[in-house]
Amino acid sequence: MPEIVKGLKDVYLDTTESSFIDGQVGKLLYRGYDIHDLAEKSTFEEVVYLLLYGDLPSKEQLAAFDAELRASRRIPDGIITVLEVMKAAHPMDALRTGISALAGYDVAEVADNSVEATIRKGIRLTAQGPTIVAAHHRLRQGLEPLAPNPDLSHAGNFLYMMFGELPDEETTGLLDVDFILHAEHGANASAFAARVTASTISDLHSAVVTGVGTLKGPAHGGAAEEVMKMSLDIGNPENAEEYARNHLESGGRIMGFGHRVYRAEDPRARHLRDRAQALGEKKGEPRWFQILSHLEQKTMLPYRDRGICVNVDFFAGAIYYLLDIRTTCSSPFSHLAASPAGRCSAWSSTRTTS
Amino acid sequence: MPEIVKGLKDVYLDTTESSFIDGQVGKLLYRGYDIHDLAEKSTFEEVVYLLLYGDLPSKEQLAAFDAELRASRRIPDGIITVLEVMKAAHPMDALRTGISALAGYDVAEVADNSVEATIRKGIRLTAQGPTIVAAHHRLRQGLEPLAPNPDLSHAGNFLYMMFGELPDEETTGLLDVDFILHAEHGANASAFAARVTASTISDLHSAVVTGVGTLKGPAHGGAAEEVMKMSLDIGNPENAEEYARNHLESGGRIMGFGHRVYRAEDPRARHLRDRAQALGEKKGEPRWFQILSHLEQKTMLPYRDRGICVNVDFFAGAIYYLLDIRTTCSSPFSHLAASPAGRCSAWSSTRTTS
Repeated sequence: MPEIVKGLKDVYLDTTESSFIDGQVGKLLYRGYDIHDLAEKSTFEEVVYLLLYGDLPSKEQLAAFDAELRASRRIPDGIITVLEVMKAAHPMDALRTGISALAGYDVAEVADNSVEATIRKGIRLTAQGPTIVAAHHRLRQGLEPLAPNPDLSHAGNFLYMMFGELPDEETTGLLDVDFILHAEHGANASAFAARVTASTISDLHSAVVTGVGTLKGPAHGGAAEEVMKMSLDIGNPENAEEYARNHLESGGRIMGFGHRVYRAEDPRARHLRDRAQALGEKKGEPRWFQILSHLEQKTMLPYRDRGICVNVDFFAGAIYYLLDIRTTCSSPFSHLAASPAGRCSAWSSTRTTS
Repeated sequence: MPEIVKGLKDVYLDTTESSFIDGQVGKLLYRGYDIHDLAEKSTFEEVVYLLLYGDLPSKEQLAAFDAELRASRRIPDGIITVLEVMKAAHPMDALRTGISALAGYDVAEVADNSVEATIRKGIRLTAQGPTIVAAHHRLRQGLEPLAPNPDLSHAGNFLYMMFGELPDEETTGLLDVDFILHAEHGANASAFAARVTASTISDLHSAVVTGVGTLKGPAHGGAAEEVMKMSLDIGNPENAEEYARNHLESGGRIMGFGHRVYRAEDPRARHLRDRAQALGEKKGEPRWFQILSHLEQKTMLPYRDRGICVNVDFFAGAIYYLLDIRTTCSSPFSHLAASPAGRCSAWSSTRTTS
């Protein structure tokens, strides 16, 4: 009887030069660059270039690369049609379907698995992903999707396409950091699943679609959503202690803590903590950060020495919530008085057959 | 430095009761039943019941289960809209997108990962998969999709929705066996990738979408397509020997041989071999089987003792081709004089924005 390795724990399937993680000390490098330096000093566009080509770009290389990204943001009308069909769906289901459908518009290259074609397709999908998310966001509120604005950065244009206003520098910078922090993390579940898909010599669209569907789960990227749901359930900082005690005593987990790799604090969390606090104050809703702070500094403090620390998802959910990037219009996110009223009023929860 | 296990070779991630494979002797069981018995004596509907619930159904159980499958075949109009957008896409890309989009119509249960809801969703997706494939097949030829026919079996209805004619018993039986043979194969690449997706507590739609994208690759289900492309390149049995010699001498592989698990003949191949021959004779195109026979009995004979034997994909491609189940209208499949003329004449290869 061969040994069964549940969850493939401690099995290494490959080496990589794209990132390095030391979970014991909470260290994360992208291609040799410390995530702290990249978060503070670079842009998402630079980081994508770094990950794709192995080195940070020169000024000229970055300008050309950024121009290519900006020129690739549009999605065909047919993809808008698909997203209209997905109006009632979770945003991750819409993103997964939209990327899958883009294969129908990339007939010339979809099956070309050369490195050159794969990088071209990767650049297109990187540029088009936010356009899909923003179009779906608007369609489910009964609003027209907006065309990408080529004058704005990747993060800035995403905010513009979501809300139809030129975003301020601070908000753009916050989302840019958030994108940098989520750009690469070795063989995490979604990247690993995408590699299994690619291993049959399928294609990049299939692999990315696999990645999105895998990222959706609450034991992965979906955790950010779960943390915010928990914060909404708690409602006020005064309730945090009792909620957490009852929750833990009944066998529940506090989402956003612990990580398969990190035994120290997830190095990505620190870049979202202060920003989540500042954003809450700016938006006049400091209580979400206060709730999270209570959970981190009081409830979960005793677990820190056992290696159960805050992870990247813990503050991300509150940031998206405060930026009005919500999961569903009928989710717990919208029934609270504190959530902006009317946002989703034009949105019908009935099934659409448009 | 930890050991790197490329391709996770010889790593076991779990045990399963749904199938048993002994690759040394070429044995495959579904839930304890020999694949040979199931192929000869059962139906696809019975096999799905067996795999889902662990036992073969009684007559009453089968009737109720089959009725549930038949009642679940319809797809919403919105999915037809999505498939129209995917007119120019590879059928596997269309299937992947169609299943992904069905999540938008299953809002009540998509995130319910209870066993009961997962089985209900699994039955719906099993019933709707062929409807998606057939609708896409017709749309890309400029034909209207056909509504499912509840008087026909799973295999029979698929053929009806594809071609608009009541299929004969022999063809229905052939496809039924083909479906049985492909229903389960442990942790093959697509099922494994789907499990990685499910492991983040994502959902069944995401997992199945991952499976379809992974199955597409030529190192997996896409091999059937590659074998047929090779047969079309060879064109005539007289060319087979020279083609194969040149191909092998220049470092190529003969597709449809060898398997990660089987060192003996893939037990599924035998059920397609005779049927592929009979179908070719019935259709007045015996040469495809003659080409395959030459490759199996002459070219690849010396490799048999080394454990490189024919696999399930080897005869499947010719069967689909002879049944007019093609990959793309502009593929090598259609430029040959032998392929039915006009089949795809109404189909435009230009990008659609409908």
